[in-house]
Amino acid sequence: MGRPLLRAGRPEQDPGDIVSEQTEVPPFCVVPGSTVHEVLDGRQTEITDLVEAAYRLHGEGHTINPPSYFLRFPDRPTARIIALPASVGGGRPVDGIKWISSFPSNLDHGIPRASAVLILNDPATGYPYACLESSIISAVRTAASAAVAARALGENRPAPGRVGYLGTGLIARHVHSYLAALGRAPREYAVHDLSTEYAHGFADHLRTTGDGSPVHVLDSAEELVRSSDVVVCATTASTPHLLDPSWFAHHPLVLHVSLRDLGTDVILDSFNVVDDVEHVLKADTSVHLAEQRTGGRDFLDGTLYDVLTGALKAPADRTVVFSPFGLGVLDLTVGEHVHARAQEGGLLRPVDGFFHDLDRHSAPRSKGGRR
Amino acid sequence: MGRPLLRAGRPEQDPGDIVSEQTEVPPFCVVPGSTVHEVLDGRQTEITDLVEAAYRLHGEGHTINPPSYFLRFPDRPTARIIALPASVGGGRPVDGIKWISSFPSNLDHGIPRASAVLILNDPATGYPYACLESSIISAVRTAASAAVAARALGENRPAPGRVGYLGTGLIARHVHSYLAALGRAPREYAVHDLSTEYAHGFADHLRTTGDGSPVHVLDSAEELVRSSDVVVCATTASTPHLLDPSWFAHHPLVLHVSLRDLGTDVILDSFNVVDDVEHVLKADTSVHLAEQRTGGRDFLDGTLYDVLTGALKAPADRTVVFSPFGLGVLDLTVGEHVHARAQEGGLLRPVDGFFHDLDRHSAPRSKGGRR
Repeated sequence: MGRPLLRAGRPEQDPGDIVSEQTEVPPFCVVPGSTVHEVLDGRQTEITDLVEAAYRLHGEGHTINPPSYFLRFPDRPTARIIALPASVGGGRPVDGIKWISSFPSNLDHGIPRASAVLILNDPATGYPYACLESSIISAVRTAASAAVAARALGENRPAPGRVGYLGTGLIARHVHSYLAALGRAPREYAVHDLSTEYAHGFADHLRTTGDGSPVHVLDSAEELVRSSDVVVCATTASTPHLLDPSWFAHHPLVLHVSLRDLGTDVILDSFNVVDDVEHVLKADTSVHLAEQRTGGRDFLDGTLYDVLTGALKAPADRTVVFSPFGLGVLDLTVGEHVHARAQEGGLLRPVDGFFHDLDRHSAPRSKGGRR
Repeated sequence: MGRPLLRAGRPEQDPGDIVSEQTEVPPFCVVPGSTVHEVLDGRQTEITDLVEAAYRLHGEGHTINPPSYFLRFPDRPTARIIALPASVGGGRPVDGIKWISSFPSNLDHGIPRASAVLILNDPATGYPYACLESSIISAVRTAASAAVAARALGENRPAPGRVGYLGTGLIARHVHSYLAALGRAPREYAVHDLSTEYAHGFADHLRTTGDGSPVHVLDSAEELVRSSDVVVCATTASTPHLLDPSWFAHHPLVLHVSLRDLGTDVILDSFNVVDDVEHVLKADTSVHLAEQRTGGRDFLDGTLYDVLTGALKAPADRTVVFSPFGLGVLDLTVGEHVHARAQEGGLLRPVDGFFHDLDRHSAPRSKGGRR
């Protein structure tokens, strides 16, 4: 894996021993958000390909991605911290966990709602070897998975005339940067948000960072949906509010990143692609509500992996909805990449003494004895 | 909580604002094992009291301690990484997660089996503020909980004539250091391990670090159990092997740290105290097996909290078994203490730029808008 490894300084070990790198303890590094940003900035195409490769590994069964695990607080009902443990196989294997907080009340104080760390563990020894700031990684892998889907599901569609953003926060900004990197600039952008301030802020962002295409701030979600060929749903809505299938009569491609914007009738009227069936059919997502209403999963047409492998073709003459749960294996994949690039760039310094006195804590070598 | 806090440098914010500390982002620090060791070394009495206080908070319902969460690997069947998310209330509240690996194959390469990190989160904002090496914290909180139990359950017993250690690895060493700090030195020690090398290594450790009491390495578990007034079970046995209640006819106090050494007949013949009923009756612990066999929990006499509050008196004329699951809230409590002491001692340095560009990622301030 290209990481230098610490050798426990065992005096009885001949320094000439050929010790496999799998038997040594990796150094422990901290990767701050500033380094994560530096390493990922401007690398949208590379990260999109990386996330597509992770989805392929996932589809081939070379990952472990148990359900997310929620820590909730009776005294702070809107807050939660979620654990996403996971394991990625393939050529650059890594285990680990994302630990991501969402405290909506932070927004009232000018602090981002979400904060996160990602721990990477060495698959050979289990030792943690990195702690990365992970709010940027989370946003980036979410945006990259939308880009993977847009690329694969939009293949047989013309370049979009209008891309519409419903919900204009941090995730929308990242999705835009990833969709823009696909090189299929739309003729124009539409933007809508319940907060006019957010909507105009995002519109300014599109104008100053974009490709010169005009940006329209629209007054209603209906107008945005009806007029956009690609609809990016990036709100924080907890219950569906896009309820009328007739708004989708022009058969857009919907990147349903937020998971809870679309009503059941819209879902049942569309061609539905998800990233992981078991994960996304949980926690009252729009597709989960559709499952509850219909008592089955027949309305799901397949997974992104099916599309990537050519086993599933998305139609151009139906509304296509991509509902991505967002998998811990994507965070791990991007995190491992960030760590490797930071290391190549000389941006990492191991934390001295992180694993304290490995000899003192190691046991005498003996086979088969029970301690 | 006595931590300095970073203020997001919002230009529109009057620097004279009275901003509650609850609305700001704490700096992020890494606490290496060397610092953890420095801060905890020689503080057994203080940590024992701290862990007792945590058990009281837990008993009073001021904690959140969901079930542990296991990440397992089909290609590495003996390995696992366990997540213990938790929340502690009271006067020094903290949320967080322990992420602890156990890779038994490490021992064949002279590397400790377990490695761990602990993330502490600020209960006001959800922001992570520390990443601590946690194999030492884990061992220490385990040892401290054994000491809390020995102190409370041994109150009406004479000072032990002989303390016996069954299993002589890292946990036994820590338990010894915590029991020794209780100030009731036994007349002598007994030691047994399936590995003679381990047993003699631990005996030497007791002789060089101890109180001068003689140490006997015994050939059999039976001899150790029959001759000890306090039996510390600290093996890695996965199925019970102390099966005969007659070995316990002298009614010792058994600190069943390992959870799986005692056969069902021994459990059912004893006075049983646990730390948390729901947690310990899982994963085929000895008490779980007893529950499965009897179809009920009547054999459990109460919790450590009941003993600490005086609601439960442990008899001196029966075998008393303490089976501690080990709770994430203990790790958090000890970890918070380590962080606070390290900060007081000037041993912490925030990681520059860990939370990158808080302004860029924060949203415009607006009430009630959905992004």
